[in-house]
Amino acid sequence: MNEFELIAKLTKSLPTNENVLCGTGDDCAVLDFGAPDQLFLFKTDAVVEGIHFDKTASPEQVGRKALARCLSDIAAMAGTPSAALVTIGLPQKFDADFVARIYDGMGGMAKQFGVAIVGGETTTNPERIFISIALLGTVGRGKQVMRSEARAGDAIFVTGELGGSIAGKHLDFEPRLVEARWLADHFPIHAMIDLSDGLAGDLRHIVKASGVGAELLKTAVPVSPVAKASARKSSTARPAFAAALADGEDFELLFTVAAKDAVKLLDAWKKRFPKLKLTCIGKMTAGDGILVRDKTGSHKLNIHGYAHFQGKTE
Amino acid sequence: MNEFELIAKLTKSLPTNENVLCGTGDDCAVLDFGAPDQLFLFKTDAVVEGIHFDKTASPEQVGRKALARCLSDIAAMAGTPSAALVTIGLPQKFDADFVARIYDGMGGMAKQFGVAIVGGETTTNPERIFISIALLGTVGRGKQVMRSEARAGDAIFVTGELGGSIAGKHLDFEPRLVEARWLADHFPIHAMIDLSDGLAGDLRHIVKASGVGAELLKTAVPVSPVAKASARKSSTARPAFAAALADGEDFELLFTVAAKDAVKLLDAWKKRFPKLKLTCIGKMTAGDGILVRDKTGSHKLNIHGYAHFQGKTE
Repeated sequence: MNEFELIAKLTKSLPTNENVLCGTGDDCAVLDFGAPDQLFLFKTDAVVEGIHFDKTASPEQVGRKALARCLSDIAAMAGTPSAALVTIGLPQKFDADFVARIYDGMGGMAKQFGVAIVGGETTTNPERIFISIALLGTVGRGKQVMRSEARAGDAIFVTGELGGSIAGKHLDFEPRLVEARWLADHFPIHAMIDLSDGLAGDLRHIVKASGVGAELLKTAVPVSPVAKASARKSSTARPAFAAALADGEDFELLFTVAAKDAVKLLDAWKKRFPKLKLTCIGKMTAGDGILVRDKTGSHKLNIHGYAHFQGKTE
Repeated sequence: MNEFELIAKLTKSLPTNENVLCGTGDDCAVLDFGAPDQLFLFKTDAVVEGIHFDKTASPEQVGRKALARCLSDIAAMAGTPSAALVTIGLPQKFDADFVARIYDGMGGMAKQFGVAIVGGETTTNPERIFISIALLGTVGRGKQVMRSEARAGDAIFVTGELGGSIAGKHLDFEPRLVEARWLADHFPIHAMIDLSDGLAGDLRHIVKASGVGAELLKTAVPVSPVAKASARKSSTARPAFAAALADGEDFELLFTVAAKDAVKLLDAWKKRFPKLKLTCIGKMTAGDGILVRDKTGSHKLNIHGYAHFQGKTE
């Protein structure tokens, strides 16, 4: 049983109550406490030494990444982050300076986006550092963008460039909070997700949640120069397109919008965010899976995302 | 550097914002999102295999305890818990049934108190199970009970009986949510905390936060039968009174109220909660430390709580 199968099993019959608009199944939980124009977004995310970072990462980068991952999930719902709690599991003989530097990295990221760090705890995890962040944010009622509202015919957009994040971007990516709020404020965005599992895996989340299909145009997918260079350097490296589909931890925004809004959106984006690439990479379809169109035709995508990576597209 | 010293160092200059009424330093963070009659309580707490539970605990008990610890913190502020997120770090080869049973224990506790479990994640922690719970609750504006408002002359009360929790109570304690809300609804409670570090450590938190002192009456402190039996059984066991002061994980309520309200409160409590002991164990003083009064006089308490336990009182 892998992570996704276990979660599916565990989340089948979770207790709920009248505050829950959306529990599991999206980037954040969405909660309603009765405020006329405000909903709450609630998210946790963990990074573990040896799994999500290693000794080559500075403690500042580790702290920054831990918080930035949660911020990216708030961005994916077009929300505004407010308050974070930090749980750190540490070996019994920890280096206090190292931990203080983790907090420094986290604090810098928090200040950049107006987030308060309102506490947390340190506890013992003898073999490795384990950091779990809980983040609370808000979104205007009705302004939350879910994964589940993509429609057949929608244009699919992605910010930035994909693949090869392990070379460095996974530690210093910018959560797309400003961009996501701008999008939701100016266009009727149908569905949005942040790319943590990789384009193939995360687009599949939208496809499944929305009950539609998707078709990607292979040549349109913006592959990062790092992924391209890595593919050129070694014959055993993942091909660049496969890296863009499945590397994961890009933390870019993937969203869909009615086709009629696509050109207008792209034009407005270029004026507002001239330095950040936005690319239309395909369209949602009436089908139920993901197709990749290249010069030889349309092929069923057989990469399930980071956790299931099979190393080839068919 | 121990846990408390590290936290003090880390929390000196945390980023804050306009939503924060109280960040670190109390049982929960208190957040204000502008609702006229509602504040939010935000808390995380972790339990780690081999630290907070061992192989003798059933997975249901582990899940129950993980959530109940957070619920106890919401109780300590007189709040109402609403939504929880669950992070579980697991060895790569985990037993899915074991994890499902952790969720069962957690789910039972959640249902008992109307709490929704709105998601979370599983991740890898190769050597041991690491569970972190984030809990969001609410409290009426102005109804939150802090640690910092105890006044000299207040009567000090504690629910239940203290000490020896390791024999079983640490796994099956009842978070005092109903009792705490009833207290805050019916009496002007000045300060409250839940007993996680032990009476000595947690009373010291109130003393420090409130800038007052405290005097405990040794014979009044309700020592649990388990702690008494354990002290009788072995000459090397902690004396029963020391166990009540310092064992930790009692998860009872410790609170202070104006002396003039003490008798009225005790009478009303006995009618409302006839099965749960409530004991007046001393009074807050104009001093700055904790004294213990016994038949030989008044002695300075030299037990700093669970993390610092020295094994003797002086």
